[in-house]
Amino acid sequence: MSKSPWHVNILTLFPEMFPGSLGQSLSGKALEKGLWSYDTVNMRDFGHGVHKAVDDTPFGGGAGMVLRADVLEDALLSLPHKAAKNIYMSPRGKPLTQNKVTELTKIPEITILCGRYEGVDQRLLDAHNFEEVSIGDYVLSGGEPAAIILMDACIRLLDGVMGNTQTPDEESFSNGLLEYPHYTKPASWTDSSGAQHDVPEVLTSGHHKKIAQWRKERSEAITKQNRPDLWEIHKNKEKSL
Amino acid sequence: MSKSPWHVNILTLFPEMFPGSLGQSLSGKALEKGLWSYDTVNMRDFGHGVHKAVDDTPFGGGAGMVLRADVLEDALLSLPHKAAKNIYMSPRGKPLTQNKVTELTKIPEITILCGRYEGVDQRLLDAHNFEEVSIGDYVLSGGEPAAIILMDACIRLLDGVMGNTQTPDEESFSNGLLEYPHYTKPASWTDSSGAQHDVPEVLTSGHHKKIAQWRKERSEAITKQNRPDLWEIHKNKEKSL
Repeated sequence: MSKSPWHVNILTLFPEMFPGSLGQSLSGKALEKGLWSYDTVNMRDFGHGVHKAVDDTPFGGGAGMVLRADVLEDALLSLPHKAAKNIYMSPRGKPLTQNKVTELTKIPEITILCGRYEGVDQRLLDAHNFEEVSIGDYVLSGGEPAAIILMDACIRLLDGVMGNTQTPDEESFSNGLLEYPHYTKPASWTDSSGAQHDVPEVLTSGHHKKIAQWRKERSEAITKQNRPDLWEIHKNKEKSL
Repeated sequence: MSKSPWHVNILTLFPEMFPGSLGQSLSGKALEKGLWSYDTVNMRDFGHGVHKAVDDTPFGGGAGMVLRADVLEDALLSLPHKAAKNIYMSPRGKPLTQNKVTELTKIPEITILCGRYEGVDQRLLDAHNFEEVSIGDYVLSGGEPAAIILMDACIRLLDGVMGNTQTPDEESFSNGLLEYPHYTKPASWTDSSGAQHDVPEVLTSGHHKKIAQWRKERSEAITKQNRPDLWEIHKNKEKSL
């Protein structure tokens, strides 16, 4: 694929998983417009022997198979465009954050290695300076769905992808608090059980200062309840101001 | 789709995003075998007027559009199988963890609501007891890629999905530490720059106790470096034993 302003090389055993959800909606339109691009390399093509083996048993024993450094390096060196940054999707990595996402959108070309099985030979990661990135504290079947998450988060921030109706600045995490609840028409809604739900009165008052205050209080309450970790950080920041 | 031991209803504006990567590899084979199943409902089908509108402007002002409670309830009530658990993928939710994943695999039928735009009318979430789940501290284009992550993490743990070669017990997070590095053949690898990388000697020693000790030390060092938060929890747990 020809290079765009933001290009991703993907090393994978399942190239058919891409673009996946990235081929639809916002990111799909941006792909068509050439605002981003990607290439997949099937690591299997660099496997050894008649069975195109890409993995072997771990030294020191243990369950599972480990992807070979030599096979993966051959796949890496085959890439048409060399990247400024190599990323390995791994639950062992530093957690992906919105700041990290923004940082990655500023690198015009990145390579993402998607692991499978027990993992990847550590020497490959060391020799080619792979940064390990984790999308969360759970175990996936492989790195491919995690790569799609990282790319999805990046793509929406690229120049020209989002319209004026969306404002990344006002979103979750930008002020360290979770978002307040949203309400839209109808102002009074009767659910299927017959219960009536009215929009909080303040939101239809037209009183901008009171609305802002109500939203701040709701944001704080939700953050306290769902994310005591973020709430601690927020409190300490407020104190030091 | 007919029901399997683990069924997921998906409310979405982009049904074509499913099964995505879940249709391949481990989860794809499990889908074919009927170990899990899913239905998508396109919320657009329940939209109002000639344009099938599903959203409207937020009460109280602000950017973006909010998905309507009445439209979403109609979509929810149309589901062929009623679920024991309703989940809304949202950066505002409690973080998804491996424990939560295990818990969800024990619920035979769940419904996942995938938001788009600014969010969902809070009254729908309240009236139908939606639990908000976040896959990480970053903003996505919508809930669909997040739903795929949640489902991927669950599916691999379902009965019959993983072979004997993989052992979920030994994986990341099970002991509160990140995984030690892996190595496989060749024992001595020369990279493309000519540098030689040998496997750590202890791993080829055959001395099981020393190998276990080395792996524990590496796990601790990686956890300390990449996840000071997990390291704190681990230290406090060790102290209290």
